[in-house]
Amino acid sequence: MPETVIQYLLNRLKQLGIRDIFGVPGDYAFPINNAICDDKELRWIGCCNELNAAYAADGYARINGMSALSTTFGVGELSALCGIAGSYAEHNLVFHIVGMPATPVQERNALVHHTFGNGEFDQFMTMATPAVCAKTMLTPGNCIQEVERVIAAALGYRRPVYIAIPHDYVHENISHVHEKILSSQAPANVPVKSDPEVLEEAVSTIINRLSGAEKACIIPGIFVDRFGLKDLTTEVVNASGLPYVTMPMDKSVIDETNPSYLGLYMGQLVNPEIREFVESCDCVLTIGTILFDVNTGMFTAKLDRDRIISIVPYDVHIGYAGYTNLKMSDVLEELARRLRKRTDIRGPAARQPATPEVDAGSPITADYLYASCTKFFKPDDIIIADSGTSFYGLLPVFLPEGARLHSQTLWGAIGWATPASFGAALAAPDRRVILITGEGAHQMTAQEVSQFYRYGLKPIIFVLNNHGYLIERMLSRKLDYCYNDLAQWQYHKLPEALGCSGWVIRKATTCGDLDKIMAELDNAGTGAYVEITTPEMSAPPIMETVHSNL
Amino acid sequence: MPETVIQYLLNRLKQLGIRDIFGVPGDYAFPINNAICDDKELRWIGCCNELNAAYAADGYARINGMSALSTTFGVGELSALCGIAGSYAEHNLVFHIVGMPATPVQERNALVHHTFGNGEFDQFMTMATPAVCAKTMLTPGNCIQEVERVIAAALGYRRPVYIAIPHDYVHENISHVHEKILSSQAPANVPVKSDPEVLEEAVSTIINRLSGAEKACIIPGIFVDRFGLKDLTTEVVNASGLPYVTMPMDKSVIDETNPSYLGLYMGQLVNPEIREFVESCDCVLTIGTILFDVNTGMFTAKLDRDRIISIVPYDVHIGYAGYTNLKMSDVLEELARRLRKRTDIRGPAARQPATPEVDAGSPITADYLYASCTKFFKPDDIIIADSGTSFYGLLPVFLPEGARLHSQTLWGAIGWATPASFGAALAAPDRRVILITGEGAHQMTAQEVSQFYRYGLKPIIFVLNNHGYLIERMLSRKLDYCYNDLAQWQYHKLPEALGCSGWVIRKATTCGDLDKIMAELDNAGTGAYVEITTPEMSAPPIMETVHSNL
Repeated sequence: MPETVIQYLLNRLKQLGIRDIFGVPGDYAFPINNAICDDKELRWIGCCNELNAAYAADGYARINGMSALSTTFGVGELSALCGIAGSYAEHNLVFHIVGMPATPVQERNALVHHTFGNGEFDQFMTMATPAVCAKTMLTPGNCIQEVERVIAAALGYRRPVYIAIPHDYVHENISHVHEKILSSQAPANVPVKSDPEVLEEAVSTIINRLSGAEKACIIPGIFVDRFGLKDLTTEVVNASGLPYVTMPMDKSVIDETNPSYLGLYMGQLVNPEIREFVESCDCVLTIGTILFDVNTGMFTAKLDRDRIISIVPYDVHIGYAGYTNLKMSDVLEELARRLRKRTDIRGPAARQPATPEVDAGSPITADYLYASCTKFFKPDDIIIADSGTSFYGLLPVFLPEGARLHSQTLWGAIGWATPASFGAALAAPDRRVILITGEGAHQMTAQEVSQFYRYGLKPIIFVLNNHGYLIERMLSRKLDYCYNDLAQWQYHKLPEALGCSGWVIRKATTCGDLDKIMAELDNAGTGAYVEITTPEMSAPPIMETVHSNL
Repeated sequence: MPETVIQYLLNRLKQLGIRDIFGVPGDYAFPINNAICDDKELRWIGCCNELNAAYAADGYARINGMSALSTTFGVGELSALCGIAGSYAEHNLVFHIVGMPATPVQERNALVHHTFGNGEFDQFMTMATPAVCAKTMLTPGNCIQEVERVIAAALGYRRPVYIAIPHDYVHENISHVHEKILSSQAPANVPVKSDPEVLEEAVSTIINRLSGAEKACIIPGIFVDRFGLKDLTTEVVNASGLPYVTMPMDKSVIDETNPSYLGLYMGQLVNPEIREFVESCDCVLTIGTILFDVNTGMFTAKLDRDRIISIVPYDVHIGYAGYTNLKMSDVLEELARRLRKRTDIRGPAARQPATPEVDAGSPITADYLYASCTKFFKPDDIIIADSGTSFYGLLPVFLPEGARLHSQTLWGAIGWATPASFGAALAAPDRRVILITGEGAHQMTAQEVSQFYRYGLKPIIFVLNNHGYLIERMLSRKLDYCYNDLAQWQYHKLPEALGCSGWVIRKATTCGDLDKIMAELDNAGTGAYVEITTPEMSAPPIMETVHSNL
């Protein structure tokens, strides 16, 4: 049977491992929406709005390696754009499929809805361009070639791609006689295999540097996660015998139960003994890290370039020398095989945050809250935090084996976590998904809580209510600017309004409440939503340091 | 005292009539947020998220003539982009003020949060460009010149402008020695006054055409509203003696109680007697209309160009002849003064939708619902409908004097109406604001209901619950595609969860319920939120016609 444009695309996405497509329907996208619903191997995952759908797709991609999002022209795709941009910044692969007006409508420059009323149809693709690693408009004649091109780019860069399909082309049979393609973007320039001579020189130089170092350590980073290299990186770490630390974006990319793990490194903002150790090493091996403001403790980390070896997806930098045309996986495989184990380098002892001694009736301080999480988390938990104070509170907590903290550290769009945890839960229905969000972030996207229930998922949701944007207060010199206030919701009444019946819904205002509820959640067997009220200015230590340094 | 960059901008916005600034704070925008909060003549209006803030600003601009929105770099501005694009499409003036990273950060291409991590800082402005009529990045040296340039463009086109301010420049004193400006956009090319000879010829030609016509009518349109020309257009209509009709986007731009008003013209989709009359006229004067798909009943309107006189903001078209360099207000003033009244042309009798005879226990059909609105609406009501079936249901309803129906007909982003009605209510605290939205649209932006209560406003909110996206079902051949289903909320429990205490909250499932609740709301004196459940496929007649024509 001949294959249509949409069938070709959906079949390829299924081959790559996509089983769910997030989205909001719309008339220009109906043929696409129909094809998804008609495909027995795919599930349509409706979201409340497109930004939430994009965040959910981002969460799904973090667990599944990739995801897909379907939106309609103009109104739909632009609503999703901040989410796609976040996936681009954070290297999560999202196939964004956009339904366009039919080609005759475009050709006669018709004035139609969901446009600026100017007869132009390429403006939204132009607006999306900086936020994707490849884009295309499919036709029956270019379908195979273009789908393969954008897939190659997406897999190579682990970033979103933009795929528009005109309404009338969606169900056309693809042609195997290819059109001459006038692509506005070059094909993905991704090395398929490493240059063997470059590889040999880079690897042997790294081995010599690490062997000869007086003191050395490793900093594994986010690309380890995004390129699926957790096991290989763990092998490198174990083969090296070196201690390792992680920066904020990179927390838990490899297990924190490994005895070589020291804890969080974030420049001068936290853990002075770890900072002193890392910054006194004459050789620091970073594997897939990005040295941006948050990761470097607002640039307080002192990592001189001549002491750094940096392995990133297609390059290695050793001091001032660059090596290109290398695959990170090839470099790591060689290192895992050939590194000689150092047994002479030890870092400072790893330390969990201690649980403060409190009365059961005490208010829930940040210290008590995050120390409680230490005991609450279990192996393989997926923990998702918005990039507010909750994220900074969780950073020092050591996670159990296989547990993973996800956050949007570089893009940092608050509100991301609620829909992202929905997407993650869909991708991993057998793992526990724990959402921890401040109420300012939660208000942005709270309606998506309804989707957990709709799709039979059982998340554990903690909403921290401290009457305002706490992280914004901590980043301001004056604490009482009115723009950090919020509408006062009754959060514990929200799940019922959103249709989540039969959930465990609680409100915790004291440490005793929190202990009791956490014990209860251990075996709840259903979705849970807990409003935790904390004192208005109770912030984790990292944020206290940031505030006092302003 | 010397004026800072932000003071100059805010002072100019205040002079233009802006008293409230919508937004969500963020660290790159803190100096801007602070300046707004510190200004005694401005109110900071916090919204739950940036898209909602942009929609609220759009609603405010519809009532106030213009509005302002403040967001932070990257994550904030991109979240707002679909809303800004809607204001661009629909010609609502929104000043979008974006807080950028400080210039030293930009100059050293630093890798910082809320970016793609690539050291580039101009990408988001580039992404915004197609959705604004002018853009700028302010510096102390260009501030006066650039603010005045974008204000001129904004006032001339009644469209959004984009104003970025680097963090470190916000509180710098402006310099009166101007920098040499390298602007990426030309100054606003807006005629300040009409060319008198062109004006004379256009006006006298129009008068001759209308005087000599066998049958003629007027179609006032959206630009009448956007350029503040309601009174002048009413004078033209009255001076002409001609009947007038309106198309969907243009409903109620001038009063519908005028005896010359015939009703809705929407091609072949509704009111055949009106269509027959309009399309049999040998001269049709359109004043500020846009002939796009929805307005023309999906291009079923037959308006041959040789029979049309079109007055738009800076041009007049008479048949195939174009006249440029004209101001719409000048043309209308001349016409109001010089048109000779025709008393010989009459259209078909105007007809309100009739209220069906029903039992009190009957389910609430679309027919009953919209006919009930006919009785419920009062003079000067601001009625805001999402562009779903509710909008098409309200189109045939004649509105009382001064009442206005607002919708997003061209851009058509569902979810717009809930935050837009919040913005409208802020702009007109003494008028009744009535929101009518389907539940699919409402789910997109429902959290903004909390802001009405927070800011002491008393809207009347009707949420139509028909278990899915009804308009999408009506636009599909198959009615049961899964993507038109929604999470099932308990809407009537939402306002309490969102903190709206003391409101009238009701659920109507029968015609009797609806009658009783509407009577009660007549004197409620507080906010009201009514969930109206309607049969799943009960759609207004226009949508029935669209569906049967698919």
